[in-house]
Amino acid sequence: MAESFPMNGGDGTYSYTKNSQYQREASNIVKEIIDEAIAEKLDVKSLTSTSPTIRIADLGCSVGPNTFISMQNVIAAVENKYYSQSLSTEKIEFQVFFNDHVSNDFNSLFASLSPDRQYFAAGVPGSFYELLFPSSSLHFVHSAYALQWLSKVPEKLLDKNSPTWNKGRIHYTGASDDVVHAYTTEFEKGMEIFLNTRGKEIVGGGMMVLIIPGIPDDINHSDLPAGVLFDFLGSSLLDMVNAGIIDEAQVDSFNLPIYAASPKEMSRLVERNGNFTIEKIELTDPRSKIDAPVNVQALIMHLRAAMEGMFSQHFGRDVVDELFERTSQNCVEISDRLQSTYMKGTQLFIVLKRK
Amino acid sequence: MAESFPMNGGDGTYSYTKNSQYQREASNIVKEIIDEAIAEKLDVKSLTSTSPTIRIADLGCSVGPNTFISMQNVIAAVENKYYSQSLSTEKIEFQVFFNDHVSNDFNSLFASLSPDRQYFAAGVPGSFYELLFPSSSLHFVHSAYALQWLSKVPEKLLDKNSPTWNKGRIHYTGASDDVVHAYTTEFEKGMEIFLNTRGKEIVGGGMMVLIIPGIPDDINHSDLPAGVLFDFLGSSLLDMVNAGIIDEAQVDSFNLPIYAASPKEMSRLVERNGNFTIEKIELTDPRSKIDAPVNVQALIMHLRAAMEGMFSQHFGRDVVDELFERTSQNCVEISDRLQSTYMKGTQLFIVLKRK
Repeated sequence: MAESFPMNGGDGTYSYTKNSQYQREASNIVKEIIDEAIAEKLDVKSLTSTSPTIRIADLGCSVGPNTFISMQNVIAAVENKYYSQSLSTEKIEFQVFFNDHVSNDFNSLFASLSPDRQYFAAGVPGSFYELLFPSSSLHFVHSAYALQWLSKVPEKLLDKNSPTWNKGRIHYTGASDDVVHAYTTEFEKGMEIFLNTRGKEIVGGGMMVLIIPGIPDDINHSDLPAGVLFDFLGSSLLDMVNAGIIDEAQVDSFNLPIYAASPKEMSRLVERNGNFTIEKIELTDPRSKIDAPVNVQALIMHLRAAMEGMFSQHFGRDVVDELFERTSQNCVEISDRLQSTYMKGTQLFIVLKRK
Repeated sequence: MAESFPMNGGDGTYSYTKNSQYQREASNIVKEIIDEAIAEKLDVKSLTSTSPTIRIADLGCSVGPNTFISMQNVIAAVENKYYSQSLSTEKIEFQVFFNDHVSNDFNSLFASLSPDRQYFAAGVPGSFYELLFPSSSLHFVHSAYALQWLSKVPEKLLDKNSPTWNKGRIHYTGASDDVVHAYTTEFEKGMEIFLNTRGKEIVGGGMMVLIIPGIPDDINHSDLPAGVLFDFLGSSLLDMVNAGIIDEAQVDSFNLPIYAASPKEMSRLVERNGNFTIEKIELTDPRSKIDAPVNVQALIMHLRAAMEGMFSQHFGRDVVDELFERTSQNCVEISDRLQSTYMKGTQLFIVLKRK
């Protein structure tokens, strides 16, 4: 079974609902690209030749509201495609499947569904590293900021006597080649499973859009710009080791199962798999359309909403409060480092079509 | 929007999970009949002629475990039908949609799904008095002990100056003809909507099995045998009025939106609607296979698990504790009345086929 660490549920201060603006901004940027991909590449007429229902899935949907916005955008783009071909959308029906881990707060998700929505909604619990849907039952799959989660921490990282023991770090940012390689291998294994399972579920001609954190082709994986925050979190944890609050071994044995791929790397994996053609692959800068300077506190809040569960399970809840407090105190330093790194493209989006 | 009062979630003392044995016994009895209906009346070959996926929905599924048992039974019966026709089930896939109100505890439901299940699972939030699925997308619909819930309390019951003002009662058991008529009308309206929405969702040749509390054709609605417990609950509430704990008007304005139909009544509604043929309609006695005498405490616990939310919302949580405590004290008297009434058939099951 894949490990699961759900986003924070409910709508409190640290909830994902109140702390996912960053992903939303990022999604807005790719909205245009999804519109374009559907307009140019999706053959809606042939997809609905046998049944008038278009089935869409959002994989790793969390609890909203971003997933609702994304799904609405996809539906609008498909409808526009119909209009552009002078086809009627009168008989077309949309069924949207919201997928995330069993531990996701589906109750909150369902409670947030708009009563005015123009689609049939369903929740599908389970890891997207497994089969989730019947064969050839989906026409469009969307997944934003979910595939960077490995199905688990690479096992090699937990071997104290191996060069992959990630001492003093919680991620591969700044780590040795051995550690980076363990992550890369895990990501490749996961992507192969993901592409095979989706390959079964998506009908021929169906489309899949993936949005994930990425890195430019020419950057070494261990120099991951987005790893700045992980670095600071790791430092805060080491400070807490020095203060006698936690044990050093606890930090050494903790690793974030998160990975950022490059366009070249993703292209190679998709081509090797063979189920999909690459219609578009592009690295964009989600910051480029955000005028204000980086709001570090907001970023930390976001990180907390997305990852608190994972830290809590390993270190305990009390430690997590102090960890994020300590990291917040480095606000200025973090901001400086982020300003320089965030100018680089860090959002990878991929449009695939099922062969 | 239809009103919703979810079964008690979680797995505590008063949870539905721990207090739904009665429905389970009842479902076991109809298992044989569902097996038979599928074996004799479901044309599985033609249903899967265009796609190998069989889509099944359980409407009003609550949080399990009964829904899992029922769905497993339906799948096994469909597979047996294939075997009996010497057809291979190798390519056949099952997708099960678990439906209940948005306020149902889907998180518990999803957490209870067996990892070994042989079907794709999805949760569908919403009232079954509305469209829940795309057109012609379901092959088999199952609903057990859910359709007795009216979409709302008949409005006429809330008019203080009308003969339908249900003074001193919380249900139509033992009430005037006017009150009974208001309930009957509401049930008829609801069934017409239910049959129309399901008519759109179920493919031609698809099957629907409904299991609901029923009454024999020759019994007056106000003599509802299953109303014994409602009567005692009503009496306990009036005792609490006399003790000055609650207000009389609170009792007068509270009515359980629950209805038990007779076979003749249901047949008439299905025929009038016209979307379905009646393959079987039968009144059975769920008690007949239970050897032990009626366990009144267990019955009251069951009632509490299913209806506590509704009482709490109207009377407040403290009142509910006392209400069920007081009712439990009438254990012996309730048992006597139940022994005589429960010999009569009180479970109506209907097998319908989409024209």
